[in-house]
Amino acid sequence: MVEEKDLALLVDLYELTMAQAYWAESMDDTAVFSLFFRKLPPHRNFMLACGQQHIARIIESLRFSQEHIDRLRGMDRFDDDFLDWLRRFRFTGSIHALPEGTPVFPQEPLLEVEAPIAEAQLLETLVMNYVHLETVLASKAARLALAADGRPVIDFGTRRMHGLDAAYRGIRAFRMGGLTGTSNVLGGLDFDLPVRGTMAHSFVQACADEMAAFRAYARLYPGTTLLVDTYDTESAVADIIDWLKAEPDVDIGAIRLDSGDMAEQAFHCRRMLDEAGLTQIRILASGGLDEYSIAEYRRNDVPLDGFGVGTAVGVSNDAPTLELAYKLTEYAGRPRMKNSPGKQSYPGRKQVYRCQDSAGRSIGDRITHREEAADGTPLLVPTLRAGRVVANAIAPLADAVAYCHEAVTALPEAQRQLDDAEPYPVTISDRLKDLQAHTLERVRPHPPAPDD
Amino acid sequence: MVEEKDLALLVDLYELTMAQAYWAESMDDTAVFSLFFRKLPPHRNFMLACGQQHIARIIESLRFSQEHIDRLRGMDRFDDDFLDWLRRFRFTGSIHALPEGTPVFPQEPLLEVEAPIAEAQLLETLVMNYVHLETVLASKAARLALAADGRPVIDFGTRRMHGLDAAYRGIRAFRMGGLTGTSNVLGGLDFDLPVRGTMAHSFVQACADEMAAFRAYARLYPGTTLLVDTYDTESAVADIIDWLKAEPDVDIGAIRLDSGDMAEQAFHCRRMLDEAGLTQIRILASGGLDEYSIAEYRRNDVPLDGFGVGTAVGVSNDAPTLELAYKLTEYAGRPRMKNSPGKQSYPGRKQVYRCQDSAGRSIGDRITHREEAADGTPLLVPTLRAGRVVANAIAPLADAVAYCHEAVTALPEAQRQLDDAEPYPVTISDRLKDLQAHTLERVRPHPPAPDD
Repeated sequence: MVEEKDLALLVDLYELTMAQAYWAESMDDTAVFSLFFRKLPPHRNFMLACGQQHIARIIESLRFSQEHIDRLRGMDRFDDDFLDWLRRFRFTGSIHALPEGTPVFPQEPLLEVEAPIAEAQLLETLVMNYVHLETVLASKAARLALAADGRPVIDFGTRRMHGLDAAYRGIRAFRMGGLTGTSNVLGGLDFDLPVRGTMAHSFVQACADEMAAFRAYARLYPGTTLLVDTYDTESAVADIIDWLKAEPDVDIGAIRLDSGDMAEQAFHCRRMLDEAGLTQIRILASGGLDEYSIAEYRRNDVPLDGFGVGTAVGVSNDAPTLELAYKLTEYAGRPRMKNSPGKQSYPGRKQVYRCQDSAGRSIGDRITHREEAADGTPLLVPTLRAGRVVANAIAPLADAVAYCHEAVTALPEAQRQLDDAEPYPVTISDRLKDLQAHTLERVRPHPPAPDD
Repeated sequence: MVEEKDLALLVDLYELTMAQAYWAESMDDTAVFSLFFRKLPPHRNFMLACGQQHIARIIESLRFSQEHIDRLRGMDRFDDDFLDWLRRFRFTGSIHALPEGTPVFPQEPLLEVEAPIAEAQLLETLVMNYVHLETVLASKAARLALAADGRPVIDFGTRRMHGLDAAYRGIRAFRMGGLTGTSNVLGGLDFDLPVRGTMAHSFVQACADEMAAFRAYARLYPGTTLLVDTYDTESAVADIIDWLKAEPDVDIGAIRLDSGDMAEQAFHCRRMLDEAGLTQIRILASGGLDEYSIAEYRRNDVPLDGFGVGTAVGVSNDAPTLELAYKLTEYAGRPRMKNSPGKQSYPGRKQVYRCQDSAGRSIGDRITHREEAADGTPLLVPTLRAGRVVANAIAPLADAVAYCHEAVTALPEAQRQLDDAEPYPVTISDRLKDLQAHTLERVRPHPPAPDD
């Protein structure tokens, strides 16, 4: 598997060929690259910026080893002097980033990298891959948490997540987005998200019979959750009720439904349990759940006390990607932009101001040039300066989670709904618009065609 | 980031609690777990089994370290004697698996694990996570290769892939599925897939003007590809033509289009280049491509000579998951199954036979009990015995890629199309059906309701 020491080579080839070209052309002025997206993915009213501060630590220690250099030499594209430059590579630039857990909208930079152009270019793939994963997964988790409206949502997605890094760092993103637990032992322990788990059908199948399985778990794990749909849910619940009547000291915390008509079964099981006086036994649901089904259960007061979500959260199944762009916006002190159809962007280094009303509700953002003042709270903060992580710039995870919860709670009601909302108001400062118009004039090599 | 030494903890908690329950109940008979899926994901006529042999090496060396044990002890769920058992854990069982690159269909085991039940249960998450990723990505890559019908398809997906492990092992899966190159340096070098790359818009933007960028690349990289849509595609191509007329020795291999109406531009650029006598300059496309757009270009003879694909292949965007199941099918010599609605499976250990007609075309599969004979070629082979990888069981990657290409080529025409096809014929042997009926009778705790 890939190791941290090899991250410098986890790069798209063109970053290395461009870096060599900059080196060959003696282009070493400061560049500003901005990481942003042009539109929200389907079914998203906001994204949660995540991973964009954490990457600062990776960048701080990024090095090309002699082994890397030897492998690159074998590709027959690189000059020895350039390879020497790579061998000595240390990132010397700075990064401004949104605090992790900040709701973010189109055109707003998640981070900006300022550095000699070859250095900044070399980071492109790693920055994008790193921030993309956590941003996509945290954003999906936030929707599940909003849908569950206070009921616990546990991540069961590890088996469907794309590889081991996703299955690990994803747990951090899930905590950021508001999930309350995970089945993933390593991720849960490392990122301090409660680790939860019950039993699989295989356990029930392997035991002499269903009740033998239930008894074994109850003995070992007081307050355990019993999986009741291996053979027949109603029979299983009836058997549990008979058992607990005979042995009232047995401590069963919950039953778990994993197939069939979840709402119908939940009402039925709740009634059976309540009539037997077992009102303290909770009912948990899993199996193909997503934010829509959870919201529907909540709307209909289906007596489900918690939700285990796998596939939907594990890959953010309805929107597994975000079209993050890492774009040059300034070089050698001059604003830069491209003019590709549908892909125009705003040049220059930027700041994002978030405005709140007197009740603390976020009412709109303004994207400005970095040096402009505006109303509201400036969101981008320095996380790396002269290649070193800024002291205290990266909040402890628990603080970031609390900040995130507060920031999501402060969003307008429409943004906190699952259905597509009117866009959150984001305006562009006049200075940025002027800069775009002037830059466009300068970069356009020929006058526009009449129908342009 | 997650390290190989920590993989034993990258496990769903319930595997550990079940393992402890098996241990506590002295249940240590042999179990058979089968990894399969019940239905194809949307838009898939086959899946390519991938990663299921490779995981054998991971399992062979899987260990719980003292640090793992200490962390588990801190969770207050595990008995010291069980933790000692975990500390001594070595997988002692066997695995049968499809050769990597085998087209696989619903109900067919990608692999079967046989081992003392606690050992086999402990592997669940890791086996699923590992095989899932490569199977999903290889299957998507195969569709792109089929759509391109012999034209090169290059992976540009690293930035959108879910984390670093996906961005690494995914390259192996792309090669299996038939992609011809990747932009990912580390993955390409390690998995022997040609590494390709051109330039980003940022390079053009940073240079004094577009032609300065083109000249710099042509000097450094003879035969290079020039990105022509930064400002205005037609102007860029006209400038290239003027340049090459003046300096005919300059070696430009291709131009790349990355936005706008790709077909229209390709025809237009092709005409411009051809009229200038530059017929040898190829035209490459990238930017939001998938198998459907590529097939459409090929159908309409759009003069595109190669395709760079990012998001679509990086996460298999239209079907990012496969509902793989890891199910107990036998324990202590007795077949096992569950009876959950819509989730019945076939008990017992199995074999898959693939039948071909006299022209070498695959015409159907038969799933049998492992000990049954049937017509056709048996596909599952032992990859691990008594905990050790079977010598020569894991084909070198180049051989697996060749085998995969042959196996996909041998599929019926309908399965090789992008549109949904009639299912490939897969039959279940009478012995398995009987076993299912008898097992169902045994495990059903109560007689079925009248409307069951």
